[in-house]
Amino acid sequence: MTTTNDLVRQLDRQYVFHSWSQQGQLDPLVIAGAKGCRMWDYAGKEYLDFSSQLVNTNIGHQHPKVIAAIKEQAETLTTVAPAHANLARGEAAKRIVERAPQGFSKVFFTNAGADANENAIRMARSYTGRDKILSAYRSYHGNTGSAIVATGDPRRVPNEFARGHAHFFNPYLYRSDFWASDEQEECQRALQHLRRVIECEGPGAIAAILLEPIPGTAGVLMPPANYLKGVRALADEFGILLIFDEVMAGFGRTGRWFAFEHFDVTPDLIVFAKGVNSGYVPAGGVVVSDAISRHFDEHMFFGGLTYSGHPLAMASIVATLDAMRDEGVVENAARIGEGVLGQGLERLAREHAIVGETRGRGVFHALELVSDRESRTPLSASAMSEIKHALLAEGMLPFVAENRIHVVPPCIVSEAETQQGLAILDNVLGEMSAKHAA
Amino acid sequence: MTTTNDLVRQLDRQYVFHSWSQQGQLDPLVIAGAKGCRMWDYAGKEYLDFSSQLVNTNIGHQHPKVIAAIKEQAETLTTVAPAHANLARGEAAKRIVERAPQGFSKVFFTNAGADANENAIRMARSYTGRDKILSAYRSYHGNTGSAIVATGDPRRVPNEFARGHAHFFNPYLYRSDFWASDEQEECQRALQHLRRVIECEGPGAIAAILLEPIPGTAGVLMPPANYLKGVRALADEFGILLIFDEVMAGFGRTGRWFAFEHFDVTPDLIVFAKGVNSGYVPAGGVVVSDAISRHFDEHMFFGGLTYSGHPLAMASIVATLDAMRDEGVVENAARIGEGVLGQGLERLAREHAIVGETRGRGVFHALELVSDRESRTPLSASAMSEIKHALLAEGMLPFVAENRIHVVPPCIVSEAETQQGLAILDNVLGEMSAKHAA
Ligand SMILES: Cc1ncc(COP(=O)(O)O)c(C=O)c1O
Ligand SMILES: Cc1ncc(COP(=O)(O)O)c(C=O)c1O
Repeated sequence: MTTTNDLVRQLDRQYVFHSWSQQGQLDPLVIAGAKGCRMWDYAGKEYLDFSSQLVNTNIGHQHPKVIAAIKEQAETLTTVAPAHANLARGEAAKRIVERAPQGFSKVFFTNAGADANENAIRMARSYTGRDKILSAYRSYHGNTGSAIVATGDPRRVPNEFARGHAHFFNPYLYRSDFWASDEQEECQRALQHLRRVIECEGPGAIAAILLEPIPGTAGVLMPPANYLKGVRALADEFGILLIFDEVMAGFGRTGRWFAFEHFDVTPDLIVFAKGVNSGYVPAGGVVVSDAISRHFDEHMFFGGLTYSGHPLAMASIVATLDAMRDEGVVENAARIGEGVLGQGLERLAREHAIVGETRGRGVFHALELVSDRESRTPLSASAMSEIKHALLAEGMLPFVAENRIHVVPPCIVSEAETQQGLAILDNVLGEMSAKHAA
Repeated sequence: MTTTNDLVRQLDRQYVFHSWSQQGQLDPLVIAGAKGCRMWDYAGKEYLDFSSQLVNTNIGHQHPKVIAAIKEQAETLTTVAPAHANLARGEAAKRIVERAPQGFSKVFFTNAGADANENAIRMARSYTGRDKILSAYRSYHGNTGSAIVATGDPRRVPNEFARGHAHFFNPYLYRSDFWASDEQEECQRALQHLRRVIECEGPGAIAAILLEPIPGTAGVLMPPANYLKGVRALADEFGILLIFDEVMAGFGRTGRWFAFEHFDVTPDLIVFAKGVNSGYVPAGGVVVSDAISRHFDEHMFFGGLTYSGHPLAMASIVATLDAMRDEGVVENAARIGEGVLGQGLERLAREHAIVGETRGRGVFHALELVSDRESRTPLSASAMSEIKHALLAEGMLPFVAENRIHVVPPCIVSEAETQQGLAILDNVLGEMSAKHAA
C-alpha cells in the first residue's frame, strides 16, 4: 500500500491525542519529508518552512552531518544510564560551555525545555534556600508542573497547581502595561514595577527571576535596550538569581549564540533546548555557573531523569554545534536578519495597513496584525485563520499565534528563500489588508 | 587520540552535572559500547547488564531492527512539529493501543515518564473537575513539578512545591505499615487505610489515584493478589479515576505487556515510557480510555510539548514493539522469570543469611538484604556499597537501591546469561553473608 496524505491523516485522527487542542476539531497538515527550509507532503505539495516547526530547526531540516552523527551514535550506543560516563555527553557539554560566556562550567541535561526550566528552578531554590520564582506574564516556559505555573500566558490558568510563583509585567511598548509613550519610559517603568513586585513579594523570599531575554511565544517582544541590565541589577541588589530561558531564542536564532549577548548581561543559569540540536532528538538542559556548580559539589542535587544526557541526543548536539560553527549558521542568521528579512518586513509593515508593528532580531521576527492601526485592535481569530490558510495555499508553512505571524525560518535560510517568503507574505497581507483593515 | 576510560571520565567530571548527586563525590563507570545483555568500557572490561540501565532496555542493547529503524527515520524526517500528522507517530500510537486492553483509544506522547505522569494528572483533573491526586508513599513518578510531589519517596521532600497531592501507605508485607501478619491481612488493611484516606481527603475532591501496579524504585513491591482490584473498586465507588504508572513495569518487564494484566484490573489512564522503546530515543506517553478521549473531543486539552510524538522516537517504538512481538520477548521474560530467575533467587535467599526476602515477577525482581533476618534490619549503606563494587568487579552491572539489589536484566536475557548472573550473585552474597550477616 502506498502512503497517502489521507491514510496518514486518518491514522493520526484515530490514534493520536494532540497538544493544546480540542481533539474533535483537528485537521492536521501531513508532512512526509523535509530538507533545509522545505517540507512536503505525500502528494508532492511543497512548503517553505517559515515556522522552523516550533521554532526549533535552526540548522534546517535533515542536515546531512547531524543525520550522519545520529546514525553513527545509533550504531555505537544509543542509550545509557545517566550515572555512567559517556563520550558523546562529555563532548556535548564541553561544546555548550564553550559557547556560554565566562563563568559557566557544567551542563545538566534534560529531555526538553520544560524539564530544563524545572531543574533550573530547583537549582535556584536549593542554592538560595529561598522559595519564590518571579516570571513574566508574557512568557512560556513549558507544560510540566512548575514550568507551566512559571509561564505567564493564559495556558497557566487551568494548570495552577504549583506554589511559590509570582508574576510581573514585562516591557512591550506596543501594548504598554505602564502607560509609557517611548522605549526609555517603558524600560524605566517596567523596572520600577519589577522593583515594586520584589518589595511586595519579599526580597528575602525570592530565589530567582526567570525570564526569556526575548519572549518568543508571547510575540517576539524585543526588550528595551537597558531592561535586562536593569533586571540583573535588581537581582544583584536583592541576592536573587537570574535565570534566562533561552529555549527559543538561543543557539543562533537572534544572530548570536545566546539572545542575552545582545544586551551585555549574564545570567546565573541558562536554560536551553530546541536550537541546541534543532530538535533532531529530544534534548534540553541547564548551563550552570561556576558558583552554583561549586555549591553542588558539596550539596546534594535533588533532581534527575532517566534520559539525562542521552547518547543519541548528545551526538546530535555535538554535530549540530560543530556544523553551525563550521558553516557560519549563526552569522547567516544575523546577516539575513538585519539585511534582508528585517528590512523586508519593515517594508511590508509600511505597505500593508493590516500590519501594526514588526519587530525582531536575526531570524526571530513577528508581524503584529491589527484591524485598525489607530486603536491597535488585534485582528480577529477568523481573519488570522484565513491568513494562515492563504499562506499554506501559497506554499508557506507559517507560525501563527493569536494576532501575529512569527517569521521564524531556519537560521540557514538563504537570501532567495527569504525573498520568496517575503513575496508570499506580501501577496497575502495585500489581499487581507484590502479585506480586513479599517 | 584514542579514547580511553580516563579521558571520558575526565571530560565527564569537568563538564557534566549529574542527577541526584553531590557532584564532588562522583566516580562514574565509563561505558563505551553494548550489545544485548552486555556492555563494555574502553579497556575491554565487560559487564553483564543486570540493571537494564534504569530498568529501560527491555529489548537489550543495540537491537539491530530498532537501530535500523532509527537510522531509516533519521534519513527520512527526524523531527516535525506535533501539530502536523506524521506516519511513524500514527503507527506507534496504533501499536500501543493494540497492546492495551479493550476500551483504550488514543495515545498522547511525551518525552519520558515524568512528563507522561504530568499529563495524565492534567487529564484526570480536567476530566473530573476535581483537584487532588492520591499516590503511594512507596513510589517514584518522576522529577518535574507535579510528578515529584506525586512521588512518595524521600526525594519528594526537598521538592514539595505543588499542591493538591496526598499520599497513602501501600502494601508491603515484609515491612508492613499495617501491623499485618499475612498477605490477606496486609491487603485488607491497606484497602481499609486507603478508604480512610479518601474519606478524610474528601472523595468529591479527588481526581485520581496514581499508582505503580508493582512499585519499582521502591523495591519491586508485589501487591497482594486482590489489592489492585480493591483500589479499582474504591475508585469506582467515589467517582475517582485510576491511573497506572507503567513506566518501569510495563512493556514486558513482568512477562506481560502491562503489569496490571496480572491482577485482572484495568485503569482509566496508562502512563508509559522506558520499555516502550527501551529508551533508545527519549519517549513516554499516556494511553487514554475511550471515555476520556471522547471528553477531550469536546473540551480543550491544556497540555503540550515541542517533541510530542517526535518521529525518531516514534520509529523506535514501532520497531521495538514489532520486534518484541516477532521475537517473543515478553514470553521470554515470563519464562526466564518464573523458571530460572525466580527459582534461582529463591535458592539464593535460602542459602545466604544476608537475604531477607526475594520477590518479583518476570525479569522484575528484588533481593532485600538485611544484617539480621529476625529484626529485618536493612544492610548498611557501606555494606551495600561494598556489594555493588564486588558485583562490578565480577563483571555484573547491578541496580542497587537502598538495601536492595534489583535484579532486572533485559527481557531478552537467555538462560545461560541468567545462570551466569545468578552465579555472580551467589559468590558475592556468600562472601558478604559471612562478613555482614548476624
Ligand atoms: C522559551 C521557552 N521555554 C520553554 C519551552 C518549553 O519547551 P518544551 O516544549 O521543549 O518543553 C518553550 C517551548 O516553546 C519555550 O519557547
Ligand atoms: C514508575 C516510574 N514512573 C516515572 C518515572 C520517571 O521517568 P523519567 O525518568 O523518564 O521521567 C520512573 C523512572 O524511573 C518510574 O520508574
